[in-house]
Amino acid sequence: MTYEEIMKNHVSSNNSKIVLIIMDGIGDIPHPDFKNKTPLEYAATPNLDLLTKSSMLGRISPILPGITPGSGPAHLAIFGYDPLEQQIGRGVLEALGLGIQLKSNDIAARSNFASIDKKGIITDRRAGRIADDKADALCELISSISEIDGIKIKIKPGKEHRFVTVFSSENKELGSLISDTDPQHDGFPIQKAIGKNESSQYLANAINIFTEKSLEILKNQYPANAILMRGLSSRPRILSMRDKYKLEAAAIAAYPMYRGIASLLGFSILPAGESIEELFEIYHKNSNKYDYFYIHIKGTDKAGEDGDFLGKARCIERVDKALPILLKELPDVLCITGDHSSPALMHSHSWHPVPVLIHSKYCGIDASQRFTELESITGGLGDFESKYLTGLLLANAGRLQKFGA
Amino acid sequence: MTYEEIMKNHVSSNNSKIVLIIMDGIGDIPHPDFKNKTPLEYAATPNLDLLTKSSMLGRISPILPGITPGSGPAHLAIFGYDPLEQQIGRGVLEALGLGIQLKSNDIAARSNFASIDKKGIITDRRAGRIADDKADALCELISSISEIDGIKIKIKPGKEHRFVTVFSSENKELGSLISDTDPQHDGFPIQKAIGKNESSQYLANAINIFTEKSLEILKNQYPANAILMRGLSSRPRILSMRDKYKLEAAAIAAYPMYRGIASLLGFSILPAGESIEELFEIYHKNSNKYDYFYIHIKGTDKAGEDGDFLGKARCIERVDKALPILLKELPDVLCITGDHSSPALMHSHSWHPVPVLIHSKYCGIDASQRFTELESITGGLGDFESKYLTGLLLANAGRLQKFGA
Repeated sequence: MTYEEIMKNHVSSNNSKIVLIIMDGIGDIPHPDFKNKTPLEYAATPNLDLLTKSSMLGRISPILPGITPGSGPAHLAIFGYDPLEQQIGRGVLEALGLGIQLKSNDIAARSNFASIDKKGIITDRRAGRIADDKADALCELISSISEIDGIKIKIKPGKEHRFVTVFSSENKELGSLISDTDPQHDGFPIQKAIGKNESSQYLANAINIFTEKSLEILKNQYPANAILMRGLSSRPRILSMRDKYKLEAAAIAAYPMYRGIASLLGFSILPAGESIEELFEIYHKNSNKYDYFYIHIKGTDKAGEDGDFLGKARCIERVDKALPILLKELPDVLCITGDHSSPALMHSHSWHPVPVLIHSKYCGIDASQRFTELESITGGLGDFESKYLTGLLLANAGRLQKFGA
Repeated sequence: MTYEEIMKNHVSSNNSKIVLIIMDGIGDIPHPDFKNKTPLEYAATPNLDLLTKSSMLGRISPILPGITPGSGPAHLAIFGYDPLEQQIGRGVLEALGLGIQLKSNDIAARSNFASIDKKGIITDRRAGRIADDKADALCELISSISEIDGIKIKIKPGKEHRFVTVFSSENKELGSLISDTDPQHDGFPIQKAIGKNESSQYLANAINIFTEKSLEILKNQYPANAILMRGLSSRPRILSMRDKYKLEAAAIAAYPMYRGIASLLGFSILPAGESIEELFEIYHKNSNKYDYFYIHIKGTDKAGEDGDFLGKARCIERVDKALPILLKELPDVLCITGDHSSPALMHSHSWHPVPVLIHSKYCGIDASQRFTELESITGGLGDFESKYLTGLLLANAGRLQKFGA
């Protein structure tokens, strides 16, 4: 019997409430410019400190030691899906990030403008990172190609040279087993898209025609005189939180990417304000309607990726200040953690384990005094893989039956 | 290469003695009525404290994070069998708990009296939890059906409405791939047993006839006017400790369930007294005859399941007081742990990691001063799955050879 099978056979439903607060990229490492503290250590967090004293700490590993995850696998793991088994295509993730709702027969591609020379050789895969408004105008231009062979094409601009292309058809099945047109390195020509089966080859042909027509449209637009596509993918077939864990789940997240991932898993997507206070108030307004609330806080990751140590610490302080709003109505199980670490010193996501706090009647209490990286090392929850977090929260909520007699 | 293969190829025999003391359900969480201490923290344990100072602590996870195990999988794991691979059927476990010795062609079913209405719909799956003596008399009544189609039927009463039915045949193979007659919910009729292959269908037919005949016998015995069966199973095919680990193993356990599990693994079952002193004296009397001793102490789990915090602490103190008897002749490897946690606050088994102590010449010593949940978090053995414990004890006993050159 596998862990997945145990879950399937032993999960049950009750009236308990579970709240999971994800401070995106919360984990960090000591920063030499700030007394070798981490943002969690540096920030003043009186409310979190108090909560910690009646909670258990530990650390979650998003994937495996040394593996730095993107938001997709990190969130899948947090929600109790094996991130190595269950993956979301890059094209789909990029589409979700732009707030595009994909239907089951839609295929999305990460796309970008590039520079090619007269011989068609790519000289800059990022078209000199052209400005957003320039790229928006170019997206408008190539949007004139709205259909090829009965396949509808939609373009949505992203940041700088990036955009997303979505292919759809109402009559014919589209496959996504299609090779990239992006060779991944400068100095090569644009590659022909090749489909691995009939439905994929059908779309691949249209992609090749689309690429040719775009070259014609963009021929005088150097440095953005070509387009490249990769990560062609469709919505993954994935069990909802309802079917997998008998949870009516709701997402309170302001950013499209996280709303998108949650919607793939069947979460109800609640309207979310910009401030942390608003996120917590929305929980209150809806606390009777769902079993499981995912509240996503982006500021910590954004500051981490910007290398903004103080910004990250301030975001933590804002969460701390708003916490009493949430604690007015303490859920049966409260969990505070991150999907991954984003150390300010690194300006990026990282592989470091992420502190996790669980508060519930039956979780237990350890000796921790503050919710920090250092104290979470010796926390009572120990170290475990993120994919087991949901099971642990279900156990604390009395929603997991005994395995065997 | 798998862990199982490494074990098989590298285990060897020598003259060392290993003693494993299982304080059933020992792990706990802080209790608000007792200064937020756990029973291990609350109890006065001078002998355990002294032992701890020359030992290593750690924590074992019975199955995986969040999974609460029954005694069956928890004990299998402790003895070095993967509890997800190797399972013992519910009927077999129930039979073991009643001290029934199953032969290889015996099929056991968890059975119970139930209430049905005039239309045959189940109104109470537990027949109002009838008293033991009433149920004993009813078991006697249906025992009059001693054979159907050459299949012998034996009934043994358990607690309240529960009993075990054992089907056996000397001539014909009996299969156990048989669906439950118990629909698991009130409001449904008794289900027909269905066998998934020929030998199972042969027994399923007899079960259906047995059920019909019982209804006739019990028709005036409301609320116990029907019987239900589930968990039909036979003795698992499982390697003995001798074949798997080259260990001559002996069990010192007073309760039938634990003697039963040990006997499935080929342990010699030693006569066991009721007091902890007696359990330890039996070890002394037999210490030259076996390599590996499993000493089972039930009181901790019983108190935990009863929510009796002080009872659990007192049982720990009794173990502590008796410990010098065992230590008169210190084995090469001494391990003290539990099969799972049973927090008094929860009145039940739980998923929490279990403290483990190992004392041996080569185990090492950490900074731990007392054998408690909190100190075990930072113990030198770390956190690991219970299924690796036996390998670790074998290593400490010099019974595991180097893997690779």
